[in-house]
Amino acid sequence: MRWIVVLLLLAAAPAAAAPRDWVEANRAALLEEYLAFLAIPNVAGDREDIRRTAAHIVGMMERRGLSPRRLESEDGSAPPLIYGEWAIPGAERTYVLYAHYDGQPVTPEAWRVTPPFEPRLLTGPADSGGRPAPSEEPPLDDWRIYARSASDDKAGVMAILAAVDALRAEGRQPSFNLKIVFEGEEEAGSPNLQGLLRRHRTLLQSDGWIIVDGPAYASGPRQLTLGVRGIATGELTVYGPVRPLHSGHYGNWAPNPAMMLAELLASMKDDEGRVIIDGFYDDVVPLSAAEQAAVAAAPAQDEALRAELGLARTEGGGETLTLLINRPSLGITGLTSADTGAAARNVIPAEATASFDLRLVLGNDPRRQFDRVAAHVRAQGYELLDREPTMEERRRFPRIARLTYGGGYPAERTRLDRPLARSVRAALEADGPLVVLPSLGGSLPLYLLRQELHAPTVVVSLWNHDNNQHAEDENIRLGHLWDGIKAVAAVMTME
Amino acid sequence: MRWIVVLLLLAAAPAAAAPRDWVEANRAALLEEYLAFLAIPNVAGDREDIRRTAAHIVGMMERRGLSPRRLESEDGSAPPLIYGEWAIPGAERTYVLYAHYDGQPVTPEAWRVTPPFEPRLLTGPADSGGRPAPSEEPPLDDWRIYARSASDDKAGVMAILAAVDALRAEGRQPSFNLKIVFEGEEEAGSPNLQGLLRRHRTLLQSDGWIIVDGPAYASGPRQLTLGVRGIATGELTVYGPVRPLHSGHYGNWAPNPAMMLAELLASMKDDEGRVIIDGFYDDVVPLSAAEQAAVAAAPAQDEALRAELGLARTEGGGETLTLLINRPSLGITGLTSADTGAAARNVIPAEATASFDLRLVLGNDPRRQFDRVAAHVRAQGYELLDREPTMEERRRFPRIARLTYGGGYPAERTRLDRPLARSVRAALEADGPLVVLPSLGGSLPLYLLRQELHAPTVVVSLWNHDNNQHAEDENIRLGHLWDGIKAVAAVMTME
Repeated sequence: MRWIVVLLLLAAAPAAAAPRDWVEANRAALLEEYLAFLAIPNVAGDREDIRRTAAHIVGMMERRGLSPRRLESEDGSAPPLIYGEWAIPGAERTYVLYAHYDGQPVTPEAWRVTPPFEPRLLTGPADSGGRPAPSEEPPLDDWRIYARSASDDKAGVMAILAAVDALRAEGRQPSFNLKIVFEGEEEAGSPNLQGLLRRHRTLLQSDGWIIVDGPAYASGPRQLTLGVRGIATGELTVYGPVRPLHSGHYGNWAPNPAMMLAELLASMKDDEGRVIIDGFYDDVVPLSAAEQAAVAAAPAQDEALRAELGLARTEGGGETLTLLINRPSLGITGLTSADTGAAARNVIPAEATASFDLRLVLGNDPRRQFDRVAAHVRAQGYELLDREPTMEERRRFPRIARLTYGGGYPAERTRLDRPLARSVRAALEADGPLVVLPSLGGSLPLYLLRQELHAPTVVVSLWNHDNNQHAEDENIRLGHLWDGIKAVAAVMTME
Repeated sequence: MRWIVVLLLLAAAPAAAAPRDWVEANRAALLEEYLAFLAIPNVAGDREDIRRTAAHIVGMMERRGLSPRRLESEDGSAPPLIYGEWAIPGAERTYVLYAHYDGQPVTPEAWRVTPPFEPRLLTGPADSGGRPAPSEEPPLDDWRIYARSASDDKAGVMAILAAVDALRAEGRQPSFNLKIVFEGEEEAGSPNLQGLLRRHRTLLQSDGWIIVDGPAYASGPRQLTLGVRGIATGELTVYGPVRPLHSGHYGNWAPNPAMMLAELLASMKDDEGRVIIDGFYDDVVPLSAAEQAAVAAAPAQDEALRAELGLARTEGGGETLTLLINRPSLGITGLTSADTGAAARNVIPAEATASFDLRLVLGNDPRRQFDRVAAHVRAQGYELLDREPTMEERRRFPRIARLTYGGGYPAERTRLDRPLARSVRAALEADGPLVVLPSLGGSLPLYLLRQELHAPTVVVSLWNHDNNQHAEDENIRLGHLWDGIKAVAAVMTME
């Protein structure tokens, strides 16, 4: 059915119209192109699928005359950056528009609406009455597409490319030299981004990067963020007996690693959710007065969010989400020990594992913050290893844990008075309601752009906040997709 | 290959010999019969497999002239008791020999030696150098069979039937009317045993039951146990946001159910492993002086066990395993929340679950003990439900947990001066080293035999203690299997 898309795009191209009208008129074609894009598996780390996704994007860019190139790593093994450009002769500024084309891992059996790479249109959210959308009707704004990366972040790729179409259709061009970069392993922690930026430094020179990623403000408005939290991930395994034991024959005598892990994790936080690991909040660079003002000016959202998420209480002693994401966090992202449910057996497990992440703010160093967790585990009496214990170690140390560092990177923040921040803010404010915040709660490796390219960054976040990104049943609301294309078009023509 | 087994058994039958010699002479045939038996899946709760296992056992008993019958439940849906008998005219006593033919659930991907129902012979323990056994050589005592139920408790079924062969071969007969009962859902908590005992009360009348199940004393000797711990199982789920959230965008604000579960579990025990739930030790009937003496007389095993299991410390403030299993316990048998390892994602999970079991001693009531856990969870500020919370409940209660009772039954103990206890003890002590203990750490529904049939029970435990029962890589050492057959034969001819 690809020829239909192409024909419709060609048909739409000559008609001069505002981006808003152009998007309205081309919803069916955009939708079809997006559904085909979402059907390509893109789990970060699955190299073949990532290459297939990259090839597909190159095709989308070629059709738009964006001269796509794959920027490869030194040994060619990393997912490439996909680069494109719309050169504007005489432009005084050069900006890069960025999105990432890889997605979070999936647990297909947990997806209730559709398998993660079989995109499906519903008439609304699956958990509040959404039903399969009738294929013969024109798509409505409240419909949703369910698929991995529907929001995070194939939507960013799609919005940038569709905004190019919208400008072309209007006979306009960007107000700056437009460079486009799509990254292929953001969800894996961008292990090769630094090398890629260094290797292609000249091509990637610019006055700043505009990141299209992340959910809009929960109460609705588009969100402009001047930075991101950093991240460090880890995995903690506590060891019990060398093999699982019958819980009857050994219960009361053999230490239970699941209980030991529970005690160890519980020792890291107080009842309010405040981390009580030594030094955890020591390095934080506080918000400036202007940043504090921006946080305070953000529309109230906590009550509505609590109702939507089914939460009678939140952590942080009653402070707002908008404020709290400007602090470092420690979260358990998974627990495993033996089995629960139908597969549960009456055993003392041999080990218990928690995966966790640390979110970092300006001032935090990922490795230093991780090392504080390590020091805390040691202070609870644990011998810390970075591998399985030997039998000799098991017999020697009363408490043994394995702590592995999963990688990470620091936070990044651009000042509100920088030209890039001021231009993007003005363009978006002229186009609709906007919330401006010092930092996104999530993480992107923006520090690398400053470090390697001396480029400031801003993040434009456009998708429905209830999009389940990073979880099963990820989705995007069509109205947000259309609006996102318009927002990116507005940024492309900013003063 | 069945005809070979039958021929060997027939050939062996006429030769008069002591059980010890008979077993030595017939190892190959016994082994072949046992391997075929182990190849039949028998997970408790898988009705079709359980029926196939029952049919196979009926065949084994028919070949031995034991007049097998399936004792069915009222509606015929429960796994049947398999009944057989060797009537001894003029015998003054009637005893039942019991084993169970169902096995614990399996997680096949965790089995490292062989899939659970493809029994495999190794030359020793897999984790200390055991290699596939050469098929052309006669089996050695240190060889092991790996398979689900190899020890727990198809070994009990096999030992009882082979002991019958051994007596027949010797031209002897049991010293009492011998009844045989094999149960088919012991590992599922015996939900239908009460009804089955009531329905077949007359047929099952006896002066006592002799249970063949469980591992021998860790330092080697056979073990005679006068009772068992009871059990209650449960599952505890703690709820966070109604759907998994991006840990960056919401971390520090949305409560993390994995951390809440860790705190809740950690609040149940002190550092020594002592349960600090109100009233947890209140109902315990203390050991009598004779029982305390038996515990004190048991050979020291803790040091050797700690070395074998890779434990530098044990719980209970330095008291022995033999003593500690006479106290109630609380153990976490599994933990689940989102994922760890390669499938880990950066989420705040929507829920976290722990499965647990309570082991009970004389005086504990399963439901009462379980209710103490429930009261403890409530005392930590949780609203307790027995189902998923509604959205309204999520918005109303700051902390919500689902606690489900998985069933259970009380402990049971027979006094050391009862005739059954004295006879079995004397027969086994005359045949080899024996450890006598008031209670097994594990659980069997022996209380039902007292309640429904007024029968006392003893438990004869014969298999290698490092058999991984209830876990992956369950196994039995051949030397223990042969010795177990001899022990059962000794019991069948006890004074």
